[in-house]
Parts: sequence; C-alpha cells; structure tokens
Amino acid sequence: MTAAEPLAERVLRGEQGAVARVLSQVERRAPGTDAVLAELHRAAGRAHVIGVTGPPGSGKSTLVSAMTAHYRRAGRTVGIIAVDPSSVFTGGAILGDRIRMSELAGDPGVFIRSLATRGALGGLARAALDAVTVLDAAGRDVVVLETVGVGQAEVDVVSGAQSVAVVSVPGLGDGIQAIKAGLLEIADVHVVNKSDREGAHRTVSELREVLRLSRRSAGQWNVPIEQTVADRGEGVPALVGRFDEHLRWMEHHGERERRARQAAATRIRWAAEELVRERLRPGSPLFDAAVDEVAAKRDDPAAAARRLIGQL
Amino acid sequence: MTAAEPLAERVLRGEQGAVARVLSQVERRAPGTDAVLAELHRAAGRAHVIGVTGPPGSGKSTLVSAMTAHYRRAGRTVGIIAVDPSSVFTGGAILGDRIRMSELAGDPGVFIRSLATRGALGGLARAALDAVTVLDAAGRDVVVLETVGVGQAEVDVVSGAQSVAVVSVPGLGDGIQAIKAGLLEIADVHVVNKSDREGAHRTVSELREVLRLSRRSAGQWNVPIEQTVADRGEGVPALVGRFDEHLRWMEHHGERERRARQAAATRIRWAAEELVRERLRPGSPLFDAAVDEVAAKRDDPAAAARRLIGQL
Repeated sequence: MTAAEPLAERVLRGEQGAVARVLSQVERRAPGTDAVLAELHRAAGRAHVIGVTGPPGSGKSTLVSAMTAHYRRAGRTVGIIAVDPSSVFTGGAILGDRIRMSELAGDPGVFIRSLATRGALGGLARAALDAVTVLDAAGRDVVVLETVGVGQAEVDVVSGAQSVAVVSVPGLGDGIQAIKAGLLEIADVHVVNKSDREGAHRTVSELREVLRLSRRSAGQWNVPIEQTVADRGEGVPALVGRFDEHLRWMEHHGERERRARQAAATRIRWAAEELVRERLRPGSPLFDAAVDEVAAKRDDPAAAARRLIGQL
Repeated sequence: MTAAEPLAERVLRGEQGAVARVLSQVERRAPGTDAVLAELHRAAGRAHVIGVTGPPGSGKSTLVSAMTAHYRRAGRTVGIIAVDPSSVFTGGAILGDRIRMSELAGDPGVFIRSLATRGALGGLARAALDAVTVLDAAGRDVVVLETVGVGQAEVDVVSGAQSVAVVSVPGLGDGIQAIKAGLLEIADVHVVNKSDREGAHRTVSELREVLRLSRRSAGQWNVPIEQTVADRGEGVPALVGRFDEHLRWMEHHGERERRARQAAATRIRWAAEELVRERLRPGSPLFDAAVDEVAAKRDDPAAAARRLIGQL
C-alpha cells in the first residue's frame, strides 16, 4: 500500500485518500482521469445507487443524513454525492456541514462529496455519474446521489441512479411541482417529507391521484408514497425498506440491466459530446483551418463538421 | 423556372415559394437540407444581418416592424427571423400578426418567418442561423434576427448577427437587466424603447454609466444609446442610421471578417454536435452494441465514445 501503487487499485481497496484524490480529478477533468475511470468502471456495478431529488427547501439533505444513519446502524457503508448546480456561490457545502455536525461525523463508513462547477451543467452531470462509479468501485454498499430537482439537468443526473426518490413537502402544491419539473416519471418512490406539517394528507392524496392518472401498465413497479419527518428520523426505516424492495423488484424483472444500459448510453453520449467540444475549439489547428474555409465560403459548416469528426 | 429546377437555384433567384420551402426544411431538419444549405452558404454573406434582442415586454416586435417599414421606404428588401424559445405554446406568431396588420402586409419586399421548436434550444439556435443563410442567399438586403433575450441560448442566436441591438425599456432596472442576461458585451447598439415613458432619462444614464464602467479599449466601436418610441416610429431613422454606421465601421476595421469567422466556428461546432447526437442514439446498431459492452463492464464509456466517433 505505497503511494507508487496505481491509484485505481488503491480506490478498489477502499482507501479514503485515494478515493478523495480521484474524485478531485473527476471534478477538474484532470488529464489521465479517463484511464483511472476505465479501470474503476469495470469493477463497479455492485452498489445500490439511490437518487434523491426534489425542490429546494424540501429537506433533502436532512433526509439523506437520516437515511445514512439508518444504513450505518444496519452495518452498510454509504457514499454520498451531493450535486447542487445552484450552489456556485455557496460552494454547496450545506450537506457536508449537516453531516459533520451529526452522529455520523468521523465515521469512516460514510464518505461525502459535494460537487459544484462553474462550467456547463452537462459537465457537472457527467462528473456526478463518474463520482458514483468511483464510490461504487471503492466498495460502498449504498451510493446516494442528491440533487436539487429543478430541470432537465437534474433529471440527467439522477438517470444514473437505480432507485429514485422524489421529495415533496406539504404546502407547495407539490404534486403539481413534481409534474412541472418533469420528475413524476422518474420517481420510483415518492417521499412527502416534513409530514408533521399541516397539509401533509392533502399532499399525499394529490400525489396518489397524479400516480393514478399516470396509469402505469401491469407488471410495472408500483410507486409507493412514503411519509417522513427527516429531522426526527420518522418514516426513514420504512423508506429504506422501500429502496431494498425496489432493488429486489428490479433484480427479478430485468430492470437493473435495463437501467445499466440506459446509464451506459447516457455516459457514452456525454463522453462523445465532450470529445467533440474539446477538439473543435479555437486554437486547434484543424479547427481553425476549417473555420477559415467556411468563413471564406469555400466550404459549408456541415461538410466541415463531418470532415473534422472524421479526423478525430 | 420550373418545379424541377434545383431548389437552391430558385432560392438564389429570390423566389418566395422556394424560400418558404427551404425554411420549412431547415426548421424540421429534413433529410437533404444540408445539401441545399451548402449551396446557399457559398452564395450568402452579402446581407446586413441585424440581431434584435431584449427582455419580454421591451417592444422588440414593434421595433422590428418600424425598422422594416423604414428600410422599405429606402428601397431595401428585408427578411425577418423571429425566434422565441418560450413560444412553444403560443406558436410564436405574434410578430407575424403585427406585420400582417400593418402597412407592410402583402409587401413582397418583406419576408417573415417565426421559428419555435419543441426540441432542444441548441437546435433552435442552429435553425435560426441556417434561416439567416437562406434569406441572405435569397438576396435580402437586410436580415433581422429577433430573439427574446433571457439567457445563453439567445446570446448564441444573435452571435450569428453582424450588428446587435439590445432593447431596454424604462422602469425595469434595465441597465442591470442587460448585465444580468449577459447581453451587455454583445450590444453594438443600445436601444431604450418606449422612451416617452417616465424614467427614460434614468435608463439612458444608467446604461451610459454601465458602458463607461465596461471600459472598451481605444479603437473599438463606440456603443451608442438610441432612444425610440417604436409604435410611433420615433427615433427609428436614427437607429437605422446607426446600423449603417456600424456596418461601415466593421468593414473598415476587419470586424466583418472577424464576426464571419466567429459565426463559422459556432456553426461548425453545432453541426458536429448534432452529427454526434444523431449517430449516438438507441436503434443505431453500432451504438447499441457499444452500450451492451459498457453495461456489461467489458468496455468503459470514454473508450466507447472514442471508438464510435472514429466510426462516424
């Protein structure tokens, strides 16, 4: 276990320092990251990857903390990737702070990483899925992908999860909130958090009505609605039970393979788009020459694009 | 001039029916569009392409109508592309309606097309620049690209224009509005429309202060602030005079070539990204095979992406 030992192997043995280092490389898209990820990708696929999303203020971070504590008591190790595209200014440290102050502080069975980039959201989503690969390959039993659910980018992020929890809170017209954000179709479990608040029953019945109207066909997973009060841990054991149940259901219905294929397709597409963006930028000689030809009307953009891609 | 004659040649002669047909092909990304566009691209580059952007409610459509009327009185032909990403539900017909009701109705010297797609905004921006190519190649003296300025996608769209007017209105904290939307750096001319409203002078002085703080270096174009009351045509001749002045300035300072190169770079990049998206989709045999390999952990996403791009 020396520093000279390949980084990937140290991650595969679950060494925390190596995990942290690779995650930093992933976030910065450092040169050489692809080679390490290639090795880790081959070893990943064992963890249960749970996506937790929902509007700001729905208490996702508190819920993730409570879930993590529950998993730890059951002896399962947890990795958490918190993605907050809006946290460019805050640094997205809120979840980390919450956990550091809790009973989980210092527990080597919990690994937390917040991701926030100033770049394109596509890059952030890709980094999030790569980070999941790292924690999965490092042997975490459960990897939680927490993201603020406000749009397509967040849907992309949780598409890398196997079980997706969409969190609502009473008093926001929430059922409708989930539909608006395009989150309804991706929910495997609905969570009504802060269920001690007034209006919780109405939120539950609204969600139930929406699920009824979305009419899943027979043989599909029956999306449950779980009520929690995360800051008191209430409803959390039942919620975790639902995740376990969903995992078993997926394994019996070929859904785990289907989701793995879907995540693979997304990752390949993102990697390809990034490859194209990297090469087709000012300063790249082939690109600059093509721009000259097109600007001078000796070539057209589509033909130049085809030629450049052929040269990649 | 028969129907059998190649479509591109009929567009080059300015035949309205052919122009409308190619624009529909561009909007739908119909097969064969690239071949027609390639021919038109080589003939384009003569029109003065003017971008008009600004927040909703700033009166852009009325301003574009007034500018068009002015150009027509001077004997210049006009093509208008109105892009409204938010008009998915309205169909974006507002500008068309405005013009159809005005003195310009039925004038063959005015060609209007509204673009709105349900797809990605990137596709819409690309369609808008392609539509400019069509109207330019069809011999329009002036092509106006009108877009709702609310974000990066709109900045992308007007990046295809040679002279960009950013429209503000009094009473919205507008100077700051333009900064927020990232529109300040792309303005060649600032327009304070509805200048008969209270607060117009403050808006003008705020914009002046912002321009002063942005400190353009010597030798750069001096961005003017024009005041208009578009629905009465006030200030419009002076505004059009500024566009002409800007065109002459660009020609004397190599800026027209610089912008042509910039637009060429953007178009090549979009075409390449689209090419990748088209090929890397479920149903494409090579892509599906790669997804299987990655999902089964026999290959990793980045390596698969490199291989697939090599096969394009």
